[in-house]
Amino acid sequence: MDGQGTTTVADVGELKLIARLRARIGAAPGAEVWAGDDTAVLLPRGPTVLLTTDLLVEGVDFDTTYCTGADVGWKALAANASDVAAMCGRPTHAVVALGLPPVTPLDFVDEFLDGLLEAAARWDVSVVGGDISAAGEISATVSILGNPVSDAAVLRSGARPGDAICVTGALGGAAAGLIGLRRGLGADIGPAAQRVLERQLRPYARVDEAAVLARFEPSAMIDISDGLAVDLEHILDASRAGCIVDIDAVPVDPDIAVIAGADPLVLAVTGGEDFELLFTMDVDRAGAAAEALRATGTPMTTIGTVTTGERRIGRRSLEEWRQDGWEHLRHR
Amino acid sequence: MDGQGTTTVADVGELKLIARLRARIGAAPGAEVWAGDDTAVLLPRGPTVLLTTDLLVEGVDFDTTYCTGADVGWKALAANASDVAAMCGRPTHAVVALGLPPVTPLDFVDEFLDGLLEAAARWDVSVVGGDISAAGEISATVSILGNPVSDAAVLRSGARPGDAICVTGALGGAAAGLIGLRRGLGADIGPAAQRVLERQLRPYARVDEAAVLARFEPSAMIDISDGLAVDLEHILDASRAGCIVDIDAVPVDPDIAVIAGADPLVLAVTGGEDFELLFTMDVDRAGAAAEALRATGTPMTTIGTVTTGERRIGRRSLEEWRQDGWEHLRHR
Repeated sequence: MDGQGTTTVADVGELKLIARLRARIGAAPGAEVWAGDDTAVLLPRGPTVLLTTDLLVEGVDFDTTYCTGADVGWKALAANASDVAAMCGRPTHAVVALGLPPVTPLDFVDEFLDGLLEAAARWDVSVVGGDISAAGEISATVSILGNPVSDAAVLRSGARPGDAICVTGALGGAAAGLIGLRRGLGADIGPAAQRVLERQLRPYARVDEAAVLARFEPSAMIDISDGLAVDLEHILDASRAGCIVDIDAVPVDPDIAVIAGADPLVLAVTGGEDFELLFTMDVDRAGAAAEALRATGTPMTTIGTVTTGERRIGRRSLEEWRQDGWEHLRHR
Repeated sequence: MDGQGTTTVADVGELKLIARLRARIGAAPGAEVWAGDDTAVLLPRGPTVLLTTDLLVEGVDFDTTYCTGADVGWKALAANASDVAAMCGRPTHAVVALGLPPVTPLDFVDEFLDGLLEAAARWDVSVVGGDISAAGEISATVSILGNPVSDAAVLRSGARPGDAICVTGALGGAAAGLIGLRRGLGADIGPAAQRVLERQLRPYARVDEAAVLARFEPSAMIDISDGLAVDLEHILDASRAGCIVDIDAVPVDPDIAVIAGADPLVLAVTGGEDFELLFTMDVDRAGAAAEALRATGTPMTTIGTVTTGERRIGRRSLEEWRQDGWEHLRHR
């Protein structure tokens, strides 16, 4: 340090900060208009659009003691893109509102935009506008627009008795990563640790996977943000159905083993923020869907069946899993 | 008080709070899906959509010592609807993200939703989803979707030399209202005071007016959020043009007189948050546009001409007005 300290957002001022944001957003190609007018002017890719908003607050939804600005920006975009994927949709456009204390280092804002735009590029989302306000704490609200891949969005409410219950990827890694981060674990201890930390800090939205799955007409879909047990319950509540899940079939992230003392199965069933897709589908199509999904590099596993009866994962009820589960990630 | 204090958001918990928000939003009519799934599923009213986001933070953008929750909710919706109107558009759908300290009275949240939904009903906007997070301070981010009334949105960049510069309504009232609120002025001192306080607390979005004006093909448009001088500069910068504004033609809100010591003309030229429409238009159409606008009850005034030369309001340059203007409302 040269004694003059770090450049803060107060040093550059709100107007220059907005100009900086606009410069990063750039000009729209074609007939669209992005930042710089009262609103963005956009051309959705179909007559039906998907819209959602997600607020992240410092110290509640992210912790700057172990998240960089780029991590927060990436996750803000990825979590929203995942919500669109969970409708069997593709995100197209996003706007971002940033609350920034005057003392926030300018570097944090630049890194946030780096991470946000990196994730946006990954899933082909255009960041088209934003707002900035002074605030007492850092917050980021991303609102995202998209379209269903097929004619209709896949809701939570369409699961039918007899449908297969399926999940993409492996579960529990993001929760393991959070435990690791809180323990001060560094990525330097090896590739497995590195992978679980990445699962927490740089989650993946299963957008490409949703586009493949759309061809096999899932009956209901959600992304796993609150844990398999809680998110499965959301599908079953909306569909008024029960379930039997084979505990041995649940795909547990093998890298959890690097976190001493963590129970891999408990993290896989009750840990959140894996952002994998949890869906139901005609049992006769599940095999072909899994086969088609291989092209994305993401596995798909059938873990159970929708029923008209009680709700069980292994020998325990969903309710028991939820109550005894690992602490809720977002509401700690 | 009965000694047990007020019910807070911590008392009800985040899940019940979200359920409460969803219950207020209600079920979508027809083929749309609102709150309760991963995203809303919406049917925009045309192939081109308008999207914007606006963040309001307690103590920066609003002050709960003189704003009720309903005032904040109303203004959050109205300011966004005004941005859509300023593209000559109609807002259709909104989502809201709320940051809430655990100690926030539950009544504040209910009142916020009252005001938000009241404004939404006024401009025929459906509030279709939202997010809530714990936070250290109250914040509200509204993101709004709409459509241009005509084929194309009206940008800031289309002003042509020779066009008339026009404005709806009267200016300076919202700034006068803010001075009044800061002085602790109550609405009980008379109807003029009541009107300026309302201009500040319950601003109107000129949505119906924009729909009428669309028929007369405005060449550029903006809403007055930062004051006539600053917002006119935005149009002129985007259009690479100059202006001559007749200072005597600027419509000054007559109710400003109730605020002792306030200079009505300075507030009209440099006060913000009036949310009136400022636009340019072929001078031959301005008369008919003003005539047509009478049906809405809102007057329209031609205040000047777009030029290729310097930028003047009366004898002073835009720059001078801006520098000597009344303090910036949002960046105090």
